Amino acid sequence: MPADKQTRLDPWGATLIKDYERVIQKFGIEAFDKKILARFPDPNMLMRRGVVFGHRDLQLIADAYKAKKPFACLTGIMPSAEQLHLGNLTVIRMVKYFQDIGAETYLLAADLEALATRGISLEEARRRVVEFYLPAYIALGINPDKLHFYFQSQNQSVKNLAYEFSPRVTANEFRAIYGEVAAPKIMSSLLQSADILYPQLPENGGPKPTVIPVGADQDPHIRLARDIVHRVKTHIFVPPTSVYTKFTPSLDGSLKMSKSKPGSYIAIPEDPDVAAKKIFSALTAGKKTAAAQRKYGADPNKSVVFELLKQHLMEDDKKLERLMQDYRNGKLLDGESKQIAAELMRKFMIDFTKKFEAAKSKVNHLIS
Amino acid sequence: MPADKQTRLDPWGATLIKDYERVIQKFGIEAFDKKILARFPDPNMLMRRGVVFGHRDLQLIADAYKAKKPFACLTGIMPSAEQLHLGNLTVIRMVKYFQDIGAETYLLAADLEALATRGISLEEARRRVVEFYLPAYIALGINPDKLHFYFQSQNQSVKNLAYEFSPRVTANEFRAIYGEVAAPKIMSSLLQSADILYPQLPENGGPKPTVIPVGADQDPHIRLARDIVHRVKTHIFVPPTSVYTKFTPSLDGSLKMSKSKPGSYIAIPEDPDVAAKKIFSALTAGKKTAAAQRKYGADPNKSVVFELLKQHLMEDDKKLERLMQDYRNGKLLDGESKQIAAELMRKFMIDFTKKFEAAKSKVNHLIS
Repeated sequence: MPADKQTRLDPWGATLIKDYERVIQKFGIEAFDKKILARFPDPNMLMRRGVVFGHRDLQLIADAYKAKKPFACLTGIMPSAEQLHLGNLTVIRMVKYFQDIGAETYLLAADLEALATRGISLEEARRRVVEFYLPAYIALGINPDKLHFYFQSQNQSVKNLAYEFSPRVTANEFRAIYGEVAAPKIMSSLLQSADILYPQLPENGGPKPTVIPVGADQDPHIRLARDIVHRVKTHIFVPPTSVYTKFTPSLDGSLKMSKSKPGSYIAIPEDPDVAAKKIFSALTAGKKTAAAQRKYGADPNKSVVFELLKQHLMEDDKKLERLMQDYRNGKLLDGESKQIAAELMRKFMIDFTKKFEAAKSKVNHLIS
Repeated sequence: MPADKQTRLDPWGATLIKDYERVIQKFGIEAFDKKILARFPDPNMLMRRGVVFGHRDLQLIADAYKAKKPFACLTGIMPSAEQLHLGNLTVIRMVKYFQDIGAETYLLAADLEALATRGISLEEARRRVVEFYLPAYIALGINPDKLHFYFQSQNQSVKNLAYEFSPRVTANEFRAIYGEVAAPKIMSSLLQSADILYPQLPENGGPKPTVIPVGADQDPHIRLARDIVHRVKTHIFVPPTSVYTKFTPSLDGSLKMSKSKPGSYIAIPEDPDVAAKKIFSALTAGKKTAAAQRKYGADPNKSVVFELLKQHLMEDDKKLERLMQDYRNGKLLDGESKQIAAELMRKFMIDFTKKFEAAKSKVNHLIS
């Protein structure tokens, strides 16, 4: 293992990134600043609020958008669980954003990766994707009528590309990225690079800027694909663009919401009442007594409740800023902030469930 | 690298097996003896003459043959060259033998392996296979009307199986087999195991004994596939059977005919006169003078010319035995043995070329 576990980005392990600034500096990620923000129309709340914190080569997407040239966006479904959770929303929202501004959008089911790294059969992965993930992505705003969807297990080109890329990465590079050289990880990594570059194959219209929205822990996959672009001599690829979103914290305040800690995450779907109730268990920044909080105020940036409002629940910037101000000033207490968030959470789940049911009939043309 | 380079079986490197008996003992290969020979109808000359020297579980094939139950035979074309050479014939003859006695016969083009380990494009591999290898295999006796043929790059099931097998082999096992852990070799190995077990998938009628004729240097691949059979829990496979053939020596007498030594191999096809002429350059066991050879005789087992007669050129056992006897007794001189072999070599090439031209029209149904 590398010495500095603290800043190692491990896409399969528990992540330890606590300081996004440091990640930006250490890995040469560019900050998502006002200048790049200004180049995109109608930025969504993740972009406006710094939940998107970094990128690589996002100017290529802005350039293509401005010049009305083709660009693509790609993301993958890892069907290792039977549900999503709130933390998965940020990437999906970014994909929706790029789809909405005109990206040719690719969604893939990483069923071979789930098979190799988690032992999930192709049949089970397919069932999860068809019955849950696809309707869920549509419910969350992905337009199924403008979507290229595939299963890795059914995509000859992607699987073949992984073999073509295999001599371009050394065992030591895999070891540096993942701490070990194991066949399932090597094969999954190369397959991910193939997915990332698939929109640029001749059969898909050739080289074009392609943006991959990811959590920061997925940067090693992005870098691998970018390295491969420079090493492969038989294809011309534009180096893939990435945008990095911060993690949604778990309800207990730890860095990243995860299925591995029951009670600390909010599943999608979740019973609206249960989801609302979970908000009340979230870590906040309030003082020990109401009197103290009224007197001294509290820092909303240290409250998971405010982080959820910021990342997922409250669309209106002005309203959110007012609430944060009130919390800082001691006008808004923890219980009140929780009440507001819980109600929005309940509405989100009711809305999701309704859209999910409606979306079930829209997946057939994707999987035929 | 393991300490005993001498007996390491390296399917990608130069092989160093000089003593087939030692290989049998060291790797637990069973000797191909009279008892197993007697269980097969009309054994070909490779079987009768000990060119087939070992096997694993060949009794499973004999049992299936006897019980008239399904069994399969599989071999692969590695399109790394534009031609075959004489040394490649032994495996092809064994495949023909098993096909003739009723094996469901699978022939695959290892185009993904050629891509990963040799950098040969899929297009170039396809061209070589369609224009040369398939007609050549048919010319050498493979029946195209009873053949399952596929390109690795076009076989979803085989590629998917490689991912399924990937967690079943450790990096240390790959290192023990190949001396290193490199992505192209790992991926090619797992794909070969998938090829070997492909005839047993439900889509191909389910589990059945499957024989893979190979040179002894390919044993690591056989063992890997056999190990995987015991480790995979989601499929039932019969452990694959192997039969091992001795190498055809190069014309200069070294262990294995190889493309890497120009002038020491006989290509297929080769101009009949050139091929015949090459026989005269082959290493023999004769004494320095004709007089000495007439007096003392010479050992046919030390003559490459006799090895070629035995492995490839002379079908008639009695005639071959008589020639060997005459050589031992000093009745037959080197020049005379070369003359006989050269004439047979010339005829082989004329016959091959004729059959090759005729076979070109028979490949279309295989590649559609």
